[in-house]
Amino acid sequence: MRTLLILLLAFLSGCASTPALRGTGDLGIVIERASGRVAIVDTSAHSILARVDGLGDLSHASAVFSRDGRYAYVFGRDGGLTKVDLLLARIDRRVIQAGNSIGGAISQDGRLVVAQNYTPGGIKVFDAATLELLSEVPTGSKVVGLADLAGQRFGYALFDTGEIWLTDLTDPRHPRTRKFKAGQQPYDGLVTPNGRHYLAGLFGEDGIALLDTWQPEAGAKKILENYGKGEEKLPVFKMPHLRGWAVAGNRAYLPAIGRHEVLVVDTATWQEVGRIPVKGQPVFVMARPDGRQVWVNFAFPDNGWVQVIDTHTGQLVQTLQPGKAILHMEFTPRSEEVWLSARDDNTVSIYDTASFARKTTLAAESPSGIFFTSRAHRTGF
Amino acid sequence: MRTLLILLLAFLSGCASTPALRGTGDLGIVIERASGRVAIVDTSAHSILARVDGLGDLSHASAVFSRDGRYAYVFGRDGGLTKVDLLLARIDRRVIQAGNSIGGAISQDGRLVVAQNYTPGGIKVFDAATLELLSEVPTGSKVVGLADLAGQRFGYALFDTGEIWLTDLTDPRHPRTRKFKAGQQPYDGLVTPNGRHYLAGLFGEDGIALLDTWQPEAGAKKILENYGKGEEKLPVFKMPHLRGWAVAGNRAYLPAIGRHEVLVVDTATWQEVGRIPVKGQPVFVMARPDGRQVWVNFAFPDNGWVQVIDTHTGQLVQTLQPGKAILHMEFTPRSEEVWLSARDDNTVSIYDTASFARKTTLAAESPSGIFFTSRAHRTGF
Repeated sequence: MRTLLILLLAFLSGCASTPALRGTGDLGIVIERASGRVAIVDTSAHSILARVDGLGDLSHASAVFSRDGRYAYVFGRDGGLTKVDLLLARIDRRVIQAGNSIGGAISQDGRLVVAQNYTPGGIKVFDAATLELLSEVPTGSKVVGLADLAGQRFGYALFDTGEIWLTDLTDPRHPRTRKFKAGQQPYDGLVTPNGRHYLAGLFGEDGIALLDTWQPEAGAKKILENYGKGEEKLPVFKMPHLRGWAVAGNRAYLPAIGRHEVLVVDTATWQEVGRIPVKGQPVFVMARPDGRQVWVNFAFPDNGWVQVIDTHTGQLVQTLQPGKAILHMEFTPRSEEVWLSARDDNTVSIYDTASFARKTTLAAESPSGIFFTSRAHRTGF
Repeated sequence: MRTLLILLLAFLSGCASTPALRGTGDLGIVIERASGRVAIVDTSAHSILARVDGLGDLSHASAVFSRDGRYAYVFGRDGGLTKVDLLLARIDRRVIQAGNSIGGAISQDGRLVVAQNYTPGGIKVFDAATLELLSEVPTGSKVVGLADLAGQRFGYALFDTGEIWLTDLTDPRHPRTRKFKAGQQPYDGLVTPNGRHYLAGLFGEDGIALLDTWQPEAGAKKILENYGKGEEKLPVFKMPHLRGWAVAGNRAYLPAIGRHEVLVVDTATWQEVGRIPVKGQPVFVMARPDGRQVWVNFAFPDNGWVQVIDTHTGQLVQTLQPGKAILHMEFTPRSEEVWLSARDDNTVSIYDTASFARKTTLAAESPSGIFFTSRAHRTGF
C-alpha cells in the first residue's frame, strides 16, 4: 500500500509540474547578453515568464523560431547553437558548432537550421528537430548576412572573397551552390520582406550589391554607389546593421554610414530619393510592420535616443529617451507596440506606437536582442 | 485509505487527459460546413488533430485567431460566434449574437472581437476573453466587408445606405464612428495588406470605393469605374470574394465580375494596367504570401479548376484539378504550401507551391474555409 501511495504521489508531482497549456503566438525572448541567459516574455501580459541559463557567450546573439512557435534557436557568438523550449522554459538541445559565429536562419519549411560562421567560415546545416549536422558548405571566407529564401534556399555573402552565394538545401545532405561576384568586402546582408532581393553592403568600396533571387542568372549588380565607406566624413562608431533595414511601401530606409542621416531609396529603381537628418549615427532603421513608421536608434554617444519617422509625411514625428544604450527594437506583429532594450539601464521598455506612451518597463540584465515568435512566419528574418 | 486512493486516481485521470504541450504556430482549422464542425489541423504534420462539433450553421463561415494562437473565433451564418480552444479541442465559449451574420474581425491588440451582421444589421463588439457584449453600432443597413485597422479601428461598408464607416474602439464601450459616402450598394470590402487602403466593391454601379485610412478626412473616392456589374456580358454565377484580392508588389490582382479574366491594377494610381484570361469566372484571387504567385479558383461550372499566375512574368504557369467544388485556399505563411478544400470530394489537398505536386490529401466532410493561426499576426484578415 505504501509503495502504491508513493508511486501515485510521484505521478502526481510529475503531473503538477506540467506547465499550463498556452498558445505560443505571443511569446518571445530577450537576450540577457552578460549572463548567457534568455528571458522568455509574454507580449499579451507584458511580463517575463521565465529565464533559461547556460547559453554561453551571447554578445551579438540572434534567434529564429520553429514554425510551431515552441522553440527558439539561439546563435551565440562563441559558436553555440541552443534550442530553447519556450513552454518548458529549458534548453532542449545545445551544440557548439563553430569557433566564432554571428547568426543563422531557418529554412522555409522549418526543418533546417543554418548557422553562418566567421571561424572557420562556411555555413553548417542542422536538422531543426535534433540539431544533427546534415551538411556544411566551406567558403574559405568569413560568412555574413545569411538569410533564408524561398525554395529551401539561403543567401549569404563572403567577406574575404567578395561574393554572394545562394545555396539550395532541397536535399539537405547535398547542398547545391551558385556563386555571384558582389564587390569588395561585403560586411552584412539582408533580403527584402517579400524574399526577392538579396542585398549585401560593401565595406571595401562604395555601394551595395543587389541580387534578384527570382532571376539570379542575371547576376549581382551594384547600386547606391555613393553609399558606404568611401566618402564618409565622420568616424564610424558602429557599423549599422543592414538586417534592420526598413522597407515600407516602395521605399527603403537605410542608415547612412557615419552620417547623421537616414537615406530614402526607391525600391523600383534602387536610386536614392531623399535623406532625413537624425540625431546621431543610425544603427537600426526598422519599419513598423504596417510600414507607417520607421524607428531609428543610434551609435554611441547618441545611443540613449530613439527617433520615429512618419513614412507618409517623410517627417520626424517623435524623439524618445527610453534608457541608456538602446541596443535593439522589436515590434509586435500587428504594429501596436514596440519593445526596446536599454542595456545600461537593465530594462526593456514597451511603447505604444500610436501615442508614444511608455506602457511598462521590465527588468532584464544587460538586455540586447529581442525576438518574438511571429518571426517564424516571415521570410528573411 | 480507500477515499484517498479514489481521490488520487481521480487526480491522475485528470492529469492523464491533459493534452501534450505544443506550439500553436502551425495550427489551423478547416470548416466542415455541412456538419457544423471544424477540424483542427497541423500544418507541420499534414494531419487532422481533432474535430470540434456544435458550431451551428457554418455555410459561409469565417474565422479569426487570438494573438496567442490558441483560440479560433468562428463566425457562423446563423449569428453564432464560437470561441474554439485549439489545444483542448473543445468549445471554450459560444454566443448567438445575431440572426444572420457573415463574418467578423479581431482588433489590433487582440482584445476585441467584432461581428458584422445582415440581420438586424450593425456591428457588435465582444470581449475576446469572455465574449461579453461590450457595445454595438446600429447601422440601419446590412453590414459587409468588416476589416480591422490600426488604432483599434474597424472599417466596414453599408449595403443599403452606400457608406463606408470607420469605428474607433479605443474605448470599447463607447465607439466613435466616422461616415463616408461610398456609392451604390457596396457588397464586400477589404483592406490592403499594409492596412492602409479600405476598398468596397459596388454592386449598384460600376466601380470601387477607396478610402485612405491614413487620411480618412480626404473621403472615399471612386476608382476602376469600369469595374463591376454594369458592363458585364456574362451571367454572374457567384459574386467574387473581395477579401481574397491579391496585392503583390505594386500590383493588385482582382477577379473580373462575370468575365473569365483577372484584372491587374497598379496600386500607386489604382488604374487597370492589364487583364489575364483565365479558365472561368474567378471567385478567389489570392497572392502567395511572398507575392510571387497568384492562385485563382472559379465559379460553377469551372469550380474544379485552379490556375496559377506568375506575377514576375504575368503569365499563367499552371492549371490544376484538385477536386470537385474548390471553395477556398490557404497558404502557409512562408509560402511553401497551399491547402485547397474540395467540397464535393470531401477532401483537403496540400500542394507544394514550387513544384505544384500534391503532397497529400486529407479527408474532411464538405470542407469550405481553411484558416491558419498565422492570420493572428496579420492586419485585415
